[in-house]
Formats: sequence, C-alpha cells, structure tokens
Amino acid sequence: MAPERLSEFDLIEHYFAPLAGPAGLGLRDDAALLTIPADHELVTTVDAIVAGVHFLPDDPPTTIGWKALGVNVSDLAAKGAAPLGFLLTLALPAQTEAGWLADFADGLGRAAALWHCPLVGGDTVTMPGPLTLSITAFGVVPRGEMVRRAGARPGDILAVTGTIGDAALGLPLAAGQETPWSGALSASERAYLIDRYRRPRPRIGLAGLLRAHASAAMDVSDGLLGDAAKLLAVSGVGATIEAQSVPLSDAARHVLAAHPPSLERVLTGGDDYEILCTIPAGKWGAFAAGAVEHGIAVAPIGRVTGEGTLDIMGPQGPLSFARLSYTHFSQESA
Amino acid sequence: MAPERLSEFDLIEHYFAPLAGPAGLGLRDDAALLTIPADHELVTTVDAIVAGVHFLPDDPPTTIGWKALGVNVSDLAAKGAAPLGFLLTLALPAQTEAGWLADFADGLGRAAALWHCPLVGGDTVTMPGPLTLSITAFGVVPRGEMVRRAGARPGDILAVTGTIGDAALGLPLAAGQETPWSGALSASERAYLIDRYRRPRPRIGLAGLLRAHASAAMDVSDGLLGDAAKLLAVSGVGATIEAQSVPLSDAARHVLAAHPPSLERVLTGGDDYEILCTIPAGKWGAFAAGAVEHGIAVAPIGRVTGEGTLDIMGPQGPLSFARLSYTHFSQESA
Repeated sequence: MAPERLSEFDLIEHYFAPLAGPAGLGLRDDAALLTIPADHELVTTVDAIVAGVHFLPDDPPTTIGWKALGVNVSDLAAKGAAPLGFLLTLALPAQTEAGWLADFADGLGRAAALWHCPLVGGDTVTMPGPLTLSITAFGVVPRGEMVRRAGARPGDILAVTGTIGDAALGLPLAAGQETPWSGALSASERAYLIDRYRRPRPRIGLAGLLRAHASAAMDVSDGLLGDAAKLLAVSGVGATIEAQSVPLSDAARHVLAAHPPSLERVLTGGDDYEILCTIPAGKWGAFAAGAVEHGIAVAPIGRVTGEGTLDIMGPQGPLSFARLSYTHFSQESA
Repeated sequence: MAPERLSEFDLIEHYFAPLAGPAGLGLRDDAALLTIPADHELVTTVDAIVAGVHFLPDDPPTTIGWKALGVNVSDLAAKGAAPLGFLLTLALPAQTEAGWLADFADGLGRAAALWHCPLVGGDTVTMPGPLTLSITAFGVVPRGEMVRRAGARPGDILAVTGTIGDAALGLPLAAGQETPWSGALSASERAYLIDRYRRPRPRIGLAGLLRAHASAAMDVSDGLLGDAAKLLAVSGVGATIEAQSVPLSDAARHVLAAHPPSLERVLTGGDDYEILCTIPAGKWGAFAAGAVEHGIAVAPIGRVTGEGTLDIMGPQGPLSFARLSYTHFSQESA
C-alpha cells in the first residue's frame, strides 16, 4: 500500500495516533493544548532534517525518526528543560512505502517513550523532493531558570558530556565512503560509530544539574569548536581548549592513532548531541559529583578567558583548523 | 549574493532578527522561552507549505511568508486562542536569491506585525528540492476554554465567516490556467480572487466570541464540505447545509452565473481560512451581534442533526459531489 492510496487521515490513524499524548487531543483537532505547570515557562525549539543533507536516504527508517526527535530533545536538555511533547511535520515523497512508514513510526515512538516526549500534533504533506522532517519540541523549566548560551564568565570551566567526534566519524562509514582509517577499526567499533551518527542520545538526565550549576550551555550539533565559538561570542568572552582533554571513545582514539589529521573531523564535524557547558570553578565539584550520580560522563576541556578569542592547544602548541564547524550553505560534507 | 555565500548566521542577522519578539532571545540561543499568563493554556499548531504543492513557485515572495503564517494563525483563531509567536523552519534551495529572501522576510514581517505574532525562533536548512516552509504557531487561551472540533450538538447552527470559494477560484487564475469562467470577471475581480488565494486573513477578531458562544469550531483549509464532515464526524453528529446560504463574494457569484458547475470548486476547493463553527441556537443572537461589532461577517449555512450524515441541499434538492475536499496524497488540483 503506497501512501498515495493513504489519506492523511489514514496515515494519522495507522501510524501516529498510537504515539500521541493527551495534549494531542487524539490528533483529531486543529491544534494541541499544553498545560504549563505553575511557576514554569515553556522552552521550545525546532530542527529540520532533509534526506541527503542531514541523514542518508538509505538510513534505516527506525533511526530517522529517532534522530529527528533526538536533535530537538538535545536542545531542550541543554537549556535545562524537561521534555513535554513534540509536533511533527512530515513531508513525504509520493512513492514512500507503507513498510517504511511503519518502521519510521516505530523508531520515533520508541525514542518518544524513552525521553517521555509524546507526539502532540503535526502536519503531513506531499513532497515532490527529498523526504523532509521538521520537529518542534516543547519542554518546561522552573521560571527564570532556563540555561542560556550567553552567561559564560572568565574563569569558568568549559566542559562536555560523553565523547566527541563519534558521529562525524560514523557518517562516512554509514555512507560507505573510503577513509584512510576505517581499516584500523573492528567491526563492533564501526557499528558503534555508525550508531552514534544515526541515534543521538540527548542528555536529558543532566538538565537539573545544568540549571543548578551552569553559567551557559548549548548542545553540540555543528561541531565542538564551532559551537564553542558561538557560545563564547554571545557571552562576550573567549576560551582556551586543550585538545588532548576532549573526551574520545576508544573507536575515535583508534582512528586518530591510524590517521592523526582526523582530529579536525573529530573536533569540528558535529552531530555529537552532547552538551557543552560552562561551570563556575567554585561549582565544579558539585556539578561533577552530580553527573557521576546520574551516570553521565562530564569532562573539563578548557577555561573561559576574557580575551575574546578561542585558542585550541595541542601537545606541541596552538592548533588551527580551516574551519570550526559544519555550516549550512557550504559544502555539506563535514 | 546567493545564499550559498550566506551563512545561517548571516541569514538570521540580516533577514529574521528584525522580526523577532523578546521570547526569541535575539535568535541567538538554542530555544525560545515563552511565558504563559497565569490561568492560561498554550495552544500550538504546525502547518507546512511546499512550493508547487501549496503555493506556486512564482508567487510573489512577499505573499509566501504571509500565507505560511496565516494558515497557522487561522488555526489559533478557530480554537479561540490569541497569537503569542511562531517558529519558522525554512528549507531553501541553494540557488535562492537574496532579493527573494528580503521580500519573503518583508511579507512575513508585515503579517506577523498585523497579527501580533512575532518570530521567536527557527531553523534554516539547505533543500535539494522545492522551497518548503513549516511554521509552528503558539497562542494562549484561558484555561479550559479552547474551542474543540468535537462539541457540535443536534440543533446547533452551523456558520461560517467571510466568503467561501474565493481562494479556490483564485488558484487557477494565479497559475495562468484556462478556465471556462475567467472571461466573466473584471480585472479587479480576478485580482481579488488571486489575493484571496495568496494572502489569507485569519479571523483573530472572532476568537473571544468563539470561546463565549461556539460549541465547536475549526478553520476551513481543505474545503468547506470536507472540513464540515470532519468536524461533524469527531462530534458524532451530522448536518444539513443549504448551498444557497453559503456566503459568496461578488466575484464568486459572477463565476457561478457564468459556469454553474464551479459550485463544486467553491464548496470543496479549500484555502479559505475562514472559520466554520457551530453555535447553540440560544446563543446565536449574541454571537451574531458580537460579530457585527467586530466587523466580521458570519452567515448561518445549516443545522446540526443527530443523523450522522452531511446533506447538502440545493434549490432543486440534494446535491452530491465526487469528493468533499482537497486531500493530500491524491491529485493536487482541487
């Protein structure tokens, strides 16, 4: 059954109504109705992903919905917000298969359940072009406690969660591209990196600690260095980052051992969906201890300075890169 | 200057930051922060429009942003909500001209100012396909007062605002298609119908009256009869609509005089962005008087019944149509 035979009503009933939370009114009204708890504010963000630009057209459909929701929930987590729900815009080529839709909805539903972020509404349209998804995610924070990008102060510790660069290394593997380093990896390492590219794990467990301790935060989507530069610029400060302090997976370490120039891809490639934050030095101990309790790795990678520049230090001195991040409207290969 | 030379940062700074409300945090953070007034709830809706599907690729860019926002604000109005702001996802072909963007942002900004609905955030991505826009709009209603689709009761009066069918007649004129009836129209009538297709006027002035008096409401986007069928189905009721009571513009009357079969296009073509509502008979007087005070035309077009069917009565008896509305995933010409 191809979707040109399915009405929008059928699509919603078969695939999406099972994912809906109460705020979605059964997906049978024109709008969703969200109640914000007393003394809280609404945090909202939107990110779109396009086949061939942000994911590979032959990525497993179970991972595509997962990623589309994950990149948005990651923004909520970085702002210290708890997920409340999401709206889905799905622009589907007419030849999309029913099996694809079923798998897509399955992956999306599992991610939504995992992150307590139910579907509350959306729109489905015909796309005479590549499959395109846009998700608007909603979260709540106690009033006045949203963590901004602007807020880093000289002396703060710059830190990131998890490991950096895995997704950027996973992309060429997922695309089946030749690399000078993939021979250095085991099959399970390759699978790990590809999964990091396809299925971000937003750090929602860190939201409360960020509200309590962070002076600024954002998620790392476009590349660690470029995103750090954005946070610092809007805060009116600079920083020094120690490249050897950036936390890496074993797989990424094996890549760098085989091919040291891949450090640029690791530090600027993006799709990490880890959290970059600045923590005043006096709060670092409590923040790090809390992260351990939540089972989330956090690593200090540098210090905020008053200089207004971002300096990257390697073992032999300052490093420089052709560019700091993946940017839209330039070459798409990061 | 083509946008492949513009970074996403430049796009935001040049074209979209001037449209931003305070909740957008200068469009320099990962998320928007919305404060919902005490004792209110958030109403939110998303609609996407795709070049070649929902608007014509050569429509004036000042009207494209206007329409994308209008179709969403229309949903808010139908739910009895006051606009609060919107998120914009803009998926742009690489060859989009800077002049196009400037005009697009100008039209969008004028609509946003007119409807008191500022930009609060968004995402801009490269689209290797047709220009696609998705807008998420936010509104607020006093707690418990959102007007649902489900709620129509037998005996209620079915009513619509404004005039019906203008946009569906304007579409072939805007597309330069041959019609059997365009010769019956003056130049100003043709311009009127085209403008009705391109620039919806959401009935935000009616929101308070709907909250006070309507048992159910929705906006007419996919065609009067099809949308009425949806409202009735979810309410578990039926209705009789008197075709000759459906309010028409002078231009639409001239079309029907020249070509009576166009009645189907008028009643099922969609893109009206008028409000369809059901009003308990005892409240009709107050509702109609309030609408006059607000300068919004409302017309009774039929009665809700307990039968579960939608009957369309013409001057010579029941009418039937091949289909009741424009539907996605079928032929796109409505």
